[in-house]
Amino acid sequence: MDGATPYGWLPDGALLTQGDTLRWVGPMSGLPADLRGHITDEVDLGDRLVTPGLIDAHTHLVYAGDRAREFERRLQGATYEEIARAGGGIRSTVAATRAASEDELLALALARARQLLAEGVTTLEIKSGYGLDADTEARCLRVARRVGSALGVTVRSTSLGAHALPPEYDGRPDDYIDAVAAWLPAQAAAGLLDAVDVFCDTIGFTPAQTRRVFDAARALGLPVKLHAEQLSNQEGAALAAGYGALSCDHIEHLSASGIAAMAQAGTVAMLLPTAYYFLRDTHLPPVQALREAGVPIAVASDHNPGSSPGLSLLLAMNMACTLFRLTPEEALAGTTVHAARALGLQATHGRLAAGCRADFVAWNLNHPAELSYWFGHRPAQRVVLGGRSVSND
Amino acid sequence: MDGATPYGWLPDGALLTQGDTLRWVGPMSGLPADLRGHITDEVDLGDRLVTPGLIDAHTHLVYAGDRAREFERRLQGATYEEIARAGGGIRSTVAATRAASEDELLALALARARQLLAEGVTTLEIKSGYGLDADTEARCLRVARRVGSALGVTVRSTSLGAHALPPEYDGRPDDYIDAVAAWLPAQAAAGLLDAVDVFCDTIGFTPAQTRRVFDAARALGLPVKLHAEQLSNQEGAALAAGYGALSCDHIEHLSASGIAAMAQAGTVAMLLPTAYYFLRDTHLPPVQALREAGVPIAVASDHNPGSSPGLSLLLAMNMACTLFRLTPEEALAGTTVHAARALGLQATHGRLAAGCRADFVAWNLNHPAELSYWFGHRPAQRVVLGGRSVSND
Ligand SMILES: [Zn+2]
Ligand SMILES: [Zn+2]
Repeated sequence: MDGATPYGWLPDGALLTQGDTLRWVGPMSGLPADLRGHITDEVDLGDRLVTPGLIDAHTHLVYAGDRAREFERRLQGATYEEIARAGGGIRSTVAATRAASEDELLALALARARQLLAEGVTTLEIKSGYGLDADTEARCLRVARRVGSALGVTVRSTSLGAHALPPEYDGRPDDYIDAVAAWLPAQAAAGLLDAVDVFCDTIGFTPAQTRRVFDAARALGLPVKLHAEQLSNQEGAALAAGYGALSCDHIEHLSASGIAAMAQAGTVAMLLPTAYYFLRDTHLPPVQALREAGVPIAVASDHNPGSSPGLSLLLAMNMACTLFRLTPEEALAGTTVHAARALGLQATHGRLAAGCRADFVAWNLNHPAELSYWFGHRPAQRVVLGGRSVSND
Repeated sequence: MDGATPYGWLPDGALLTQGDTLRWVGPMSGLPADLRGHITDEVDLGDRLVTPGLIDAHTHLVYAGDRAREFERRLQGATYEEIARAGGGIRSTVAATRAASEDELLALALARARQLLAEGVTTLEIKSGYGLDADTEARCLRVARRVGSALGVTVRSTSLGAHALPPEYDGRPDDYIDAVAAWLPAQAAAGLLDAVDVFCDTIGFTPAQTRRVFDAARALGLPVKLHAEQLSNQEGAALAAGYGALSCDHIEHLSASGIAAMAQAGTVAMLLPTAYYFLRDTHLPPVQALREAGVPIAVASDHNPGSSPGLSLLLAMNMACTLFRLTPEEALAGTTVHAARALGLQATHGRLAAGCRADFVAWNLNHPAELSYWFGHRPAQRVVLGGRSVSND
């Protein structure tokens, strides 16, 4: 993905790993003799396509319960109000998550992460945001960490306490924002945080409330990111870019000034096409304007039980192409090099280069465009995590 | 799926199989004592949901090559004309298929069928239609049969010689239709045919040409089905219903008279939402009118390299709900009981009842609505084919 050739594609390539790191990457014929002598184990990947391990840089993987009955009731004709009155919506997920033990939440999150790993995802971001109280938020963040250590995947853990207003704070969103900001130091001290996120929209929190959470994050030296301009333009992206945000996510209603601010700050545009699909949204994100402004574009699954109960990053890539008109090369950059940038991991993840983590996938495919073209399949033949094969074959 | 209760759901159920057949189905507590005494092997499926094996009743699974580069070129801005001039479109698939040996085609089709089987698909329809000459069409139909015997899945094989005009018949579609009709007796005599299909549309064949193929099928006692009203209304559905067609497929542009004719004939409406999605169609099939007319509705993957390179029937169910507003119960009926009817297999497939084939799936799910709600996942815990477990666990 170095941009010199389409996809940075190298025919007859070789990878040399040492421990969990890529030591050398290049054409097979160019392998230096001094390194060749030290090879202790050699694997022939045949004529398979090899890419960096995929990176799913926006997920809400830790929660209990599901919203399948709510999905069904809506298709049977129930209104949103009727569903809310019947206890549906995000509050049903919050209630189920609060009632679940850490081990129960871990089992559920691990099952989901294993599906992503089998597909070729070797790095993922996991947000809290279905606890909405100090204990449950911390429990969910611990589960995110435990997913990483259990599977050997790189997990970046994000606090999204400011996801929705919990019932006990009805009518008092500012008090809740105070609480969210007050939880951050302990979460950070426990080593549970890599970033802080807010859902800024008409049904979420205001720009002013977003600032207060971001100020608390900044005081702890934590990077921020934002659920921005999904349902309306709140100029949240420009706000987040002002804090040097890693990414602004969704951004269907992103404005020209938001794009300019993101370009200026180097903030990644995180597209979440499966949520766009599942919500039957019709307002497309400004992909061409993002391209022209040079904003790096990433693509993620946004896995969550309410608006994106999908568990396939390859499907998100297909939808990014089919619905948002990304090219397959942009979709692959969006789940490798640009996704790594959105997690602050650009030095070590999302590329096949010496010094990067040895996370890569050998695919039963001939051309990288196939990664975005097929959907609903499992083409990963071998997944390598930190130099260790966790092969599907 | 008997309609007495939602989904015909039976709590604490038991299945008794004998050979490849269901001998008894009912509540565990109701198992007759005389049968209980003859049980030689017992499997506890825990508290898992069990459904009939899924049926994918419209696929084009046998072909060589792919159209990933064409997908990419279109996203890079190439026009359809430029792609056609560069040898793209269906003719590229025909050329690759003609060049492939029977064993090569089998290996490709088996890999695809295995992905469907792992998802819980135990019966599938496979069409020819990428050979478009006598030899290659017969080769593709033999491959369809071999997929069935290799995997133990039930395969229904359909001749779709009238899929597109091959280059050697340019400007002579009626001559080609004569050839297609002339191939049928030999294909039937070789035991390769369960049904005959035609692509009737502005870019396919006319209603008059469709009739000639259908007349040839009728002379052989073969049932027919039709790719109808996908891009425009040709009144193909009414034509097909006049032949007692098993199904009319796509039907986005189906008319009121077409619906009435299908209801009258008992023809199944086969919805193909992944093709609708991939082609970015905006003209919805008339689902509510089909419901009101009592037309059975089925859902299939339409797997093919041009307009639906998806390999997930569960995703097709999610898209049937999300895009076409089917309920999850309708989507499941559409891949079980109604899909069986669309293949003429309603006596033996698509239901859990004594006398039916012992094809069923135990799912890591709590509620049948989850089958349509989640997408991009693999929830099948155990797939049973003709009484024999080909388990995923
Ligand atoms: Zn999100
Ligand atoms: Zn078709």
